[in-house]
Amino acid sequence: MQTEDLRISLRVRRFLLSEISDHQRIDVFDSYEMGRVLALDSRIQLTERDEFLYHEMLVHPAMLTHPDPRRVLVVGGGDGGAVREVLKHPTVERVVQVELDAAVVEAARRFLPGLSSGYSDPRHELVIGDGVRYVEETGERFDVVVVDSTDPIGEASPLFSDRFYSGVARVLLEGGIVEAQGETPFLYPDVTGSLCATVKRVLGRVKVILGFVPSYQSGMWAFVLGSRDADLEVPPAELRRRYEERGLEGRTRFYTPEVHVGLSNLPPFIRELLDRHGV
Amino acid sequence: MQTEDLRISLRVRRFLLSEISDHQRIDVFDSYEMGRVLALDSRIQLTERDEFLYHEMLVHPAMLTHPDPRRVLVVGGGDGGAVREVLKHPTVERVVQVELDAAVVEAARRFLPGLSSGYSDPRHELVIGDGVRYVEETGERFDVVVVDSTDPIGEASPLFSDRFYSGVARVLLEGGIVEAQGETPFLYPDVTGSLCATVKRVLGRVKVILGFVPSYQSGMWAFVLGSRDADLEVPPAELRRRYEERGLEGRTRFYTPEVHVGLSNLPPFIRELLDRHGV
Repeated sequence: MQTEDLRISLRVRRFLLSEISDHQRIDVFDSYEMGRVLALDSRIQLTERDEFLYHEMLVHPAMLTHPDPRRVLVVGGGDGGAVREVLKHPTVERVVQVELDAAVVEAARRFLPGLSSGYSDPRHELVIGDGVRYVEETGERFDVVVVDSTDPIGEASPLFSDRFYSGVARVLLEGGIVEAQGETPFLYPDVTGSLCATVKRVLGRVKVILGFVPSYQSGMWAFVLGSRDADLEVPPAELRRRYEERGLEGRTRFYTPEVHVGLSNLPPFIRELLDRHGV
Repeated sequence: MQTEDLRISLRVRRFLLSEISDHQRIDVFDSYEMGRVLALDSRIQLTERDEFLYHEMLVHPAMLTHPDPRRVLVVGGGDGGAVREVLKHPTVERVVQVELDAAVVEAARRFLPGLSSGYSDPRHELVIGDGVRYVEETGERFDVVVVDSTDPIGEASPLFSDRFYSGVARVLLEGGIVEAQGETPFLYPDVTGSLCATVKRVLGRVKVILGFVPSYQSGMWAFVLGSRDADLEVPPAELRRRYEERGLEGRTRFYTPEVHVGLSNLPPFIRELLDRHGV
């Protein structure tokens, strides 16, 4: 969610791409302070300088909460950053990614090689299509589902619905876990709150972890985990064991098991907003 | 630190004050998204909506790391927010505040009553003057020193110097602790790193805690604790005991002992920047 009343502006060094795809306007430019930037419909989606803060927290909490994630579904995330992080886990045998807009994938392949590197991995399969329909119709099942959506306005709003999470419930294997970006609980507490309520209502279990995303409004972001049957609270020592066993030490710049546990300690104002939404 | 290459903009509803004091330009205005705002030399110092995130993390980590803080010095913080948080601790017998610019205090009294409420507390004494000289010359000694400075450019830069911290060392009682705002380690890692190096060099012990400040650039802020002799790592159960004993439960919206401990788990990229600075 973004408002014109509080705006983050980046000075543009050079535009590399401006196009109107079938779904949205896509811009790629080099900025002075934050490296290369991808914007969709004039909203910043990522900057090279801070995308690790977002993608690591979007992926590793769910992947490490699962003891052995082999099959992973990424919904959205056309820039490739989520897939790149998923593929750091050597347990992974297959990553299916369902992205609505082929033009975003193409733009990332051309202009964001640091993000789209996973697209050449043989374990990755790209499906161009609608995430809501995919989870309703596919015969595949997954250990982890990562929901890397844009803001809940326009085409991404179905990814915040009960209908979508019913589909997620359908494709999750036993012990399966979903993690979604949960918007800013500081500026739009009811957006975060209602997503958490949806996940809890449909799946039964929900957990919120905070993260920092400097290029998103307010810089305070929620990451929302859900499951029907998995324990979302893994003991810190077990998270650490999995992190090391999977060779992730030294391969994450923000995420560690201790950061994961630390940012799960929610401040009272966030605890209250979740309470208001029955979470 | 602020750069024009990454800018946070707030839409102004109404200006309440614009004046040039002996030290700086002072603006107070009502914004659409963030409540009332104080800006010094056109840089946002605080907004009513998010100031609790800053002031609670600037004050309570040091105050709760100290087992019995009675005498507190606040350097800067003319808006009153730091003093307000200090006075929540019933152990406090006296708070001396040294602020350079009387006009900021006056503006806060008139336009920011939610921040300046502590100014009418009989335990509070205001000294208008230079913080560096104060800590070099005063005969008073303190359990906790809180450094609520502006960015290290212009008049606030001496508050980031070895000379200032030598003065802080001079006024700290046995077991005394200093806490300072440490700028954004994401955008300007060397500013945070060199402050930490200064504190370590002069005092001997240093600890960094992260916090969220949406209205400051990048939203990721460092809070830096230092001491000559106090153990800056207090067991979580002891922090919780002090927090409850001092009646703080329900009186903080962001800070809890668990948040304090959680945000002390530093991500690798911050650990690395501190290593580069020998911290």
